[in-house]
Amino acid sequence: MEINGVTIDNTYAEAFPTWVCRVIITAVTNDWARKAATEATGFATSAIGCPCEAGIECDIPASETPDGRPGVAILICASKKKLKEQVVERLAECILTAPTTAVFNGITDAEEKIPVKLHFFGDGYEYQKEVGGRKCWVIPIMNGEYVGEEEFGIVKGVAGGNFFVMGENQMAALVGAQAASDAIADMKGVITSFPGGIVASGSKVGSLKYKFMVASTNEKYCPTLREKVADSKIPAGIKAVYEIVIDGVDEKSVAAAMGAGVKAAAMVPGVKFISAGNFGGTLGPYKLELHKVL
Amino acid sequence: MEINGVTIDNTYAEAFPTWVCRVIITAVTNDWARKAATEATGFATSAIGCPCEAGIECDIPASETPDGRPGVAILICASKKKLKEQVVERLAECILTAPTTAVFNGITDAEEKIPVKLHFFGDGYEYQKEVGGRKCWVIPIMNGEYVGEEEFGIVKGVAGGNFFVMGENQMAALVGAQAASDAIADMKGVITSFPGGIVASGSKVGSLKYKFMVASTNEKYCPTLREKVADSKIPAGIKAVYEIVIDGVDEKSVAAAMGAGVKAAAMVPGVKFISAGNFGGTLGPYKLELHKVL
Amino acid sequence: MEINGVTIDNTYAEAFPTWVCRVIITAVTNDWARKAATEATGFATSAIGCPCEAGIECDIPASETPDGRPGVAILICASKKKLKEQVVERLAECILTAPTTAVFNGITDAEEKIPVKLHFFGDGYEYQKEVGGRKCWVIPIMNGEYVGEEEFGIVKGVAGGNFFVMGENQMAALVGAQAASDAIADMKGVITSFPGGIVASGSKVGSLKYKFMVASTNEKYCPTLREKVADSKIPAGIKAVYEIVIDGVDEKSVAAAMGAGVKAAAMVPGVKFISAGNFGGTLGPYKLELHKVL
Amino acid sequence: MEINGVTIDNTYAEAFPTWVCRVIITAVTNDWARKAATEATGFATSAIGCPCEAGIECDIPASETPDGRPGVAILICASKKKLKEQVVERLAECILTAPTTAVFNGITDAEEKIPVKLHFFGDGYEYQKEVGGRKCWVIPIMNGEYVGEEEFGIVKGVAGGNFFVMGENQMAALVGAQAASDAIADMKGVITSFPGGIVASGSKVGSLKYKFMVASTNEKYCPTLREKVADSKIPAGIKAVYEIVIDGVDEKSVAAAMGAGVKAAAMVPGVKFISAGNFGGTLGPYKLELHKVL
Repeated sequence: MEINGVTIDNTYAEAFPTWVCRVIITAVTNDWARKAATEATGFATSAIGCPCEAGIECDIPASETPDGRPGVAILICASKKKLKEQVVERLAECILTAPTTAVFNGITDAEEKIPVKLHFFGDGYEYQKEVGGRKCWVIPIMNGEYVGEEEFGIVKGVAGGNFFVMGENQMAALVGAQAASDAIADMKGVITSFPGGIVASGSKVGSLKYKFMVASTNEKYCPTLREKVADSKIPAGIKAVYEIVIDGVDEKSVAAAMGAGVKAAAMVPGVKFISAGNFGGTLGPYKLELHKVL
Repeated sequence: MEINGVTIDNTYAEAFPTWVCRVIITAVTNDWARKAATEATGFATSAIGCPCEAGIECDIPASETPDGRPGVAILICASKKKLKEQVVERLAECILTAPTTAVFNGITDAEEKIPVKLHFFGDGYEYQKEVGGRKCWVIPIMNGEYVGEEEFGIVKGVAGGNFFVMGENQMAALVGAQAASDAIADMKGVITSFPGGIVASGSKVGSLKYKFMVASTNEKYCPTLREKVADSKIPAGIKAVYEIVIDGVDEKSVAAAMGAGVKAAAMVPGVKFISAGNFGGTLGPYKLELHKVL
Repeated sequence: MEINGVTIDNTYAEAFPTWVCRVIITAVTNDWARKAATEATGFATSAIGCPCEAGIECDIPASETPDGRPGVAILICASKKKLKEQVVERLAECILTAPTTAVFNGITDAEEKIPVKLHFFGDGYEYQKEVGGRKCWVIPIMNGEYVGEEEFGIVKGVAGGNFFVMGENQMAALVGAQAASDAIADMKGVITSFPGGIVASGSKVGSLKYKFMVASTNEKYCPTLREKVADSKIPAGIKAVYEIVIDGVDEKSVAAAMGAGVKAAAMVPGVKFISAGNFGGTLGPYKLELHKVL
Repeated sequence: MEINGVTIDNTYAEAFPTWVCRVIITAVTNDWARKAATEATGFATSAIGCPCEAGIECDIPASETPDGRPGVAILICASKKKLKEQVVERLAECILTAPTTAVFNGITDAEEKIPVKLHFFGDGYEYQKEVGGRKCWVIPIMNGEYVGEEEFGIVKGVAGGNFFVMGENQMAALVGAQAASDAIADMKGVITSFPGGIVASGSKVGSLKYKFMVASTNEKYCPTLREKVADSKIPAGIKAVYEIVIDGVDEKSVAAAMGAGVKAAAMVPGVKFISAGNFGGTLGPYKLELHKVL
C-alpha cells in the first residue's frame, strides 16, 4: 500500500493496557495553563525509566472549561497503583505551585476514580466550594486561592500505539516525524509522551550483551547496523527511523491518531517507508493494523 | 530602601547547599535542543516532592558547543546520591530518546565527577570517539547515532535563593514575577525550577493541623488569611505574592540573579513590596541580603 | 449587567464594512506555515496607517487542507482595490519566499474573486496542476516547486468590532485583554490584527490641536487624563484600558468573538468594567450590542 | 574548501549599501516586547516588493535598556527617504499601539538622525520627560502613558549579504538553513528579514519572458530545472537550495553572521554544498568571500 508514493508496511502496532487519568488545568491565560501542563508532564516519556508516561492532550477553550478560563488537558498513564501516586505528586508539585491554576476532573463519567487530596496542604484553612458544578476545595496560598477537584476519573486505556517514519536521510525522517506529531497534537484522547512527540532511540526488552540492562538499543532498527546484524528491519535506502508512540484513553482514539500521523508523515519529501512495531503478541492484546487505521 | 517606588525589605534569603550537575545538550537546531531540555527538566520543581530540582540555564550558541551545533545548558540539583541517579535517568529517558541530541559535560573543571554510563544501551554496538576534544561514546540508535560524554562534573552549589514579589493585586504581582523570571532566564549559572520560574504556593515545613504532611501552606504569606492569622507577613494593601526560587552553581551566581530579578520586578506597575524568605538559620548557611544583591 | 462581578456596559460596538480575503497557507510543518503567516500578516494593524489589516485566523489540521499538510488560515482586510494589491504583494513577498509553502483559496463559495497571478514569477517554466481538486500553478523555485491557487474568493465582511477591557490597574487590564485574545485566537472567521490581539492606544478621528493629524489619542479614554478632560469615559477606579478590535467575514462571526472575548476578560481578577466603542452611527452600519453578543 | 565534509564554494556574496535604523523596544515583559517587534518587522522581507526590510536583531536584557525593562532591538533598512517614512509608520502603527511599550534610539553615536515625531498623537496632552538619560516624549494613551525617544540614529549599512545552503534533498537543506538562521538569530548588528530567516525562492532581476515583471525566478538555481536550462548553478546531487539573506549595520557584522551561519549549516546531515550569490559587481560594492568570512 502506498500514500503519496510512500510504502505503508502491511503490519501492525502492538499495544497494551494502561490506566489513564485526564486532568484539566485552567489558568488566567492559555500561556500559564501551558506552562503548568508542560512541567507536570515532564520526565514522563517511557514507563521503562520514568515514573509514568504523560503529555499534553489538547487546549480547551475558556468557553468549555468548568471555570470559564483557558484550559489545557493532560493525560497521565501508569499502572493503577503508580497512577494515583503520580497524579498526586505532579498536581502537588507542578500545578498547585504554578501561578493562577485550577484543576478539574477530565473524565467525569469514569467508573473508577482516584482521590487526590491536596486540600491537606491548606493546614486547616481550606474550604469547599462549587465551581462550574464541580465540588472543589479552595486552598489559601501565596498568590491568593487555589481551586481544585479532588476526585479524578481513570479509565483503562491503551499504551504503545506506534508507527515508524523512515527516511532517505535523517532530516527527511525527522521532519516527517514532526509533521506526524503536528497532526496528532490537537487530537482528542491521545498523547505522544516523548520530546516533541518523537522517539529517536527505540529499544528492545533486555540486552544480549549486558545482562543488567532492562532495555537496550533495537539493533534491527538501527540504520548504521543494517549490514552488521542479521534480520535488519531497515529497508534498502533508509538512513534514519523515528518512532511515534501514542497513548490514549481507548483503542479508537489511538487508531485515529495513528492514521492521522501516518498520512501527515507521508506528505513529507524524503519519507520513504512507514512501518509499526510489534512483538508477536507478547507485549499486549491490541493489534492496530496500519492499513486499517488509515 | 526603594527601587522605582517599590519597597525592598531589609531582609535576606536563606539558602542551603546542593549538588549541581550541568549538562550541555546539543541538537540539529535550537528548537530540538530546547524540546529535549524541557522534557529532561520537567517534574523537577522542588526536592520536597520531586526526585530533583532542574531547569534550563541558558542557550549556548553553536559556535561555543563542543560539536558546533546549537546547544542548551541545563542544571540538575539534588543530594549527591540522588543526583547521579537523576542525571542517568533523565539523560537516558529524555535526551537519548530525543531527535538528534548529543550531551556534553558542562563543568569540565569540577573536582568531582559522576559517571553516566549510557553506552550499555548500545548492547555492544557502541564505540568511542572524540568530539570537540571530548571523549565520547557513540551509540547506534534508530535515528542514526547518539553521541555523549559519560563523565559529568558536579559542584557544591546553592539552592533556595529567593525573593517575594508582592502586588496590589494578583495580576500586578504575576507580571512582576514574570519580569523577574525574564531577567534571570539567560543568566549564567542559575535556574528557576518552578513552572515559568515562579512559585504561587510557598510552603512551610510540616503542618500544624495534619501531622502526616511534610509541608503545608505558609499561612503567614497568604493574603486571604491576613486578618485571620497572627504575625501575618503580608503588608497592608498586598493582595498576592509570588516567590522566585533560584538554584545555582555558587553563591555569587545566585546573588546576581536575585539582584537582576528584584530590579526587573520593581519596574512593573502595581508591584509594591519585595521581600525574601528565611528561617532563622535552620535551613542553611547562606544569607543573601536583598539590599546587598542589588 | 454583570459577569463574575464585572460591569458590562449597556452599549454597542460600531463596525463598518470591509472586503475580506481568506488565504490558506500550508507547509511541511505547522511551524513553517505559522512563520509564513506571521510575516504575511505583519505591519497590518490598522488601515489608518498600514496598507491593510491582517491576522492569523486559525490553524487548519493537515486532514482538512487541500494538500494534506498542516495549514494556517489568514484573513486580509481592505478596500476592494487595496485588497487585491495587498494579497498579491503579501503572497509574493512573504509566502512564495517562505520554505515549503503552498497557498489555497480560503473562501471557495464567494461570489467575487480576485486574481493573484504569481505564476509569472516562473518566467515561462511554470505549469498547471490539480492539487486536492484545486487548479493550481506550480512555479520552479530554489527549494523545489511552489504550488498555489491564483483565484481567491473575497466577501464583504465586518471591520472594527470591538470592546474595551478596563482594569483597576494596568496589569489587570493587560492580562484581561490577553485572556480575551486567547479566547478569540482559534475562532473561525475572525482576526484581531493588533500586536498580540490588543490595542493600547485607541484613537479618535483627526486632532483638536494638530490639524495635519488624521488621528490622535482618544483623550476621553485616557485614564491619566480623567480629571483633565470633560466627558471622560473612564469610570472611577479605572487605571488602564485595552481595546480588542475584531475583523471578520460576517457580522455573526464578529459578534461571537466579541461574546467569547468579553466573557474571558471578565474572569480575570482586577478587570472591573467592559465597554465598547461607537461613534453615533457615523462610522458604519453595524451595531454590535455588548448585552446581545454574550 | 570543506567543513564537516561540506564543500564551501570559492565565491563571494555581493552586497550593497542601505540605510539602517535600530530601534530598541521595551515592554513590561520580554513576551510583549517580542510581540510588538514581530508586528513592526512584518511584511518586510525584500525591498523588491515590501516597503522596507526589517527584522528582530536580538533580545536586550532589562539590565541594559534605558528604562530597566526587557527589550528587543529591531533593524529597519531602506533608502534614506523610505526609511524615515517606514520607521514613523511602523512605530506609530505597530509599537505605539502595543501594550506597555516604549521605544529608544538604538544607535546613539550615529552621525545622522531621523525625526520620528509621534508626540503629535498626544493632541496637546503630551509632555517631555527624561528616561534613563534619554529625552523622551510621554503620550497619554488608553493603557496609561507611552514613552518614546523621537530622534533615531541611522547608519549606512550593508544589505544583501547571503549564502546558499544546498542539500541532497529538501528537508536536509531546510534544516541546514534553519541551523544557520539559529546561529545568526542572536548576533549583534544583523537581521535576516525573510520568514524564519530563510528564502525559498531567490530571484533574478527582470524576466526573460514577461517584460512587465521586475523580478522572476532565478532558473539557474532551480533544482528541478537543472537539466532544462543552460549554465545551471546546481551541482550534481543537489535537490534543494535555501538562501540566507543578511542585512546589517556594517560589513564586519554581516561577514561575521555569514561565517557563523555557514558553519552551522555545514553541521546538518545531508547539506552538501554552500555557495553565495553575486552579480559581477553590478549590484553593489561589497564582496564578502565565503572562504574569508569563516
